[in-house]
Amino acid sequence: MTATPKPMGPIPPGFGTIDGQLAIGGVRATDCVVQAGGAPLFVYDAGLIAARIAALRAAMPAGIALHYAVKANPFAPLLAFMAGTVDGFDIASGGELALLAAQGVAGARIGFAGPGKRDADLAAAIAAGVTLHIESAGEAARVLSAGARVGIAPRVAIRVNPDFELAGAGMRMGGGARAFGVDADQVPALAQTLVAGGADWQGFHVYAGSQSLDANAIVAAQAATLDLVAQAADAAGVAVPMVNLGGGFGVPYYHGQRALDVATVGRGLAQALDRRAAVLRDTRFVLELGRWLVAEAGVYLAPVIDRKHSRGETFLVVDGGLHHQLAASGNFGSVIRRNYPCAIATRFDAPADDVAHVVGCLCTPLDRLGDALALPHADCGDLVALFCAGAYGASASPAAFLGHGPAKELLVGTG
Amino acid sequence: MTATPKPMGPIPPGFGTIDGQLAIGGVRATDCVVQAGGAPLFVYDAGLIAARIAALRAAMPAGIALHYAVKANPFAPLLAFMAGTVDGFDIASGGELALLAAQGVAGARIGFAGPGKRDADLAAAIAAGVTLHIESAGEAARVLSAGARVGIAPRVAIRVNPDFELAGAGMRMGGGARAFGVDADQVPALAQTLVAGGADWQGFHVYAGSQSLDANAIVAAQAATLDLVAQAADAAGVAVPMVNLGGGFGVPYYHGQRALDVATVGRGLAQALDRRAAVLRDTRFVLELGRWLVAEAGVYLAPVIDRKHSRGETFLVVDGGLHHQLAASGNFGSVIRRNYPCAIATRFDAPADDVAHVVGCLCTPLDRLGDALALPHADCGDLVALFCAGAYGASASPAAFLGHGPAKELLVGTG
Repeated sequence: MTATPKPMGPIPPGFGTIDGQLAIGGVRATDCVVQAGGAPLFVYDAGLIAARIAALRAAMPAGIALHYAVKANPFAPLLAFMAGTVDGFDIASGGELALLAAQGVAGARIGFAGPGKRDADLAAAIAAGVTLHIESAGEAARVLSAGARVGIAPRVAIRVNPDFELAGAGMRMGGGARAFGVDADQVPALAQTLVAGGADWQGFHVYAGSQSLDANAIVAAQAATLDLVAQAADAAGVAVPMVNLGGGFGVPYYHGQRALDVATVGRGLAQALDRRAAVLRDTRFVLELGRWLVAEAGVYLAPVIDRKHSRGETFLVVDGGLHHQLAASGNFGSVIRRNYPCAIATRFDAPADDVAHVVGCLCTPLDRLGDALALPHADCGDLVALFCAGAYGASASPAAFLGHGPAKELLVGTG
Repeated sequence: MTATPKPMGPIPPGFGTIDGQLAIGGVRATDCVVQAGGAPLFVYDAGLIAARIAALRAAMPAGIALHYAVKANPFAPLLAFMAGTVDGFDIASGGELALLAAQGVAGARIGFAGPGKRDADLAAAIAAGVTLHIESAGEAARVLSAGARVGIAPRVAIRVNPDFELAGAGMRMGGGARAFGVDADQVPALAQTLVAGGADWQGFHVYAGSQSLDANAIVAAQAATLDLVAQAADAAGVAVPMVNLGGGFGVPYYHGQRALDVATVGRGLAQALDRRAAVLRDTRFVLELGRWLVAEAGVYLAPVIDRKHSRGETFLVVDGGLHHQLAASGNFGSVIRRNYPCAIATRFDAPADDVAHVVGCLCTPLDRLGDALALPHADCGDLVALFCAGAYGASASPAAFLGHGPAKELLVGTG
């Protein structure tokens, strides 16, 4: 009677079952709701994040510094946890700098990239000793001016707009005319300008793309990055204390996608580093990861408010929706909407004997979190779990839309 | 050298030029920024909204009640202005009910639709005398229970999932299996259940789609709505004190789109009402409009922070972006992104002698507000104006994304 089920992405590993319920960091879903004081709710498992970081460090060459990209998830307890775990942070705004300052993170551990940095944010970052990743000639001039006003030599790197891009990336950020970074051919002269202007020169930042599941493509982009920055440094006649290699490590959201093979990335990076140019011999290399570190450690829990039937199809209407987890809905109308992994948290070990659409409580047909999912029979009061919700969820969704209010957030697994 | 310009949508009528600047409600753009205490900023012109409402009332048959859909723009001063101008309001959440209560709007003027209404929101709405638009059999049962707990007969209408849809709508909300409303064949029995359960029966609500620019399609949907609710009322043997006809009136955002012909809609609705069934003779008809009332009265103003060049193309980087005006960016990656109308507010009467991309300050290539626009030459400190920003802008965008903070909002033209 109901529609044929459509596939969903793979449920990430690392979750358990207690008393038939989904357990996150050893805490039953309903207990997460109690701890957080209600639902809808994002739960993040610090233990899964720690395990992921450990696995990454084991796979990567020794000495690679790991930075966390705050934009992926700026939840304060998560930042506090990260501060004791990663080597540094990358930020995209003065607001993110304030979030890190509240956790006592020193500016020397922070890089700041992004087009359109405000003068006030530049001044605050310079005063804190943050490394500014320069995105244009105009910004370089404003940074030198701000440094003069603050009375501190600004720590600077140049973000390079590479002439290659990360193949197979979900989002390409290099190649062609871009708002991001300085075209490679303009980099040497700008580096000299910054050094001559008295800046505290740090090196380069190259970000070629995001959300790639292709290890060989990432290896190729990293190798190309090493060549690019070595050529730029030689052309400019500058040393290279630091290179931020970007990230671009993806996670599987959809049916048929497979986890990135980080061992292959690590081997490829080691080989590329072995071959690196002399000018990079003493360089500190940074990997900047956001999504890969936290996405799969997060679960969005939304209570079922209504179970309804329309023309032979079943709808689970949840208290939750695209105002909290926009990406899972298909971003306000992607042409091809695909299902994120989903489960009934309160019936996690029950057989999938039902087919239902999971829809949010917003008055728009775009508020669909799951389309024709094979799930256990669920009813009012059950909790729907939407996985891969740890990155670009709560902070990347229109929380004020339709006035339902923001989701709660909870970090578990720190003990 | 720069790319060929791409077309943009039409700048809505009603804006002026003072000292070469865009004027909104008679206030120069830079003065709007001063009044609001900064930018980026949404400015809404109450005078344009009032004129639009007057034109609509003149075009529609006498006696049609006009409701404002709060979800389109819940800015408090705008709601206060609307409270003295429209006949009622439609809300989609308990949060929106609280916003109206803060403006002193009586519950009797409010309708509440939306799947997934929480029990607490149902109780608050019943206590306030709000008309609940019932979306399912399960919700009907919960409404009757909540009414019994509160000790007040709940005012109810049934939202019908029609078996037709609004042709040419940007977003279809009727036809097929839907999360919205009750399938037409289930409506008579549910109406009887509600009446027998002691509810204060109000009638029906039919919403067939959104953002249509086709007057004849709207007329056809309204005529079909009258037939549908008359049949349902006859089958149920109930009176019809009220019918909410929905809205669906669109505005032109893109090149080649033309304003909806509301005169044609009004004539068509008058003809349909003349022919209406006897059971609807004394019915109060409601038009529920959000976007059409406010979208074109709003302008988003964002200061240029950087003017940069990459591979022969020019980028104006603004303090602002998709975190404030997501729809204009293409909603995180629409396959076909088209340009909203845009101008340089501080050079509003200058010739378009430049071609530039307008991009936001977020670290994502999706943060593009204008692609290859023909604009006057602009530089740091100029203000970019993005039009059609009065609906589904500030409240429908991920304001927390990347930590730049929300936009300011200002209502002008009330004097």
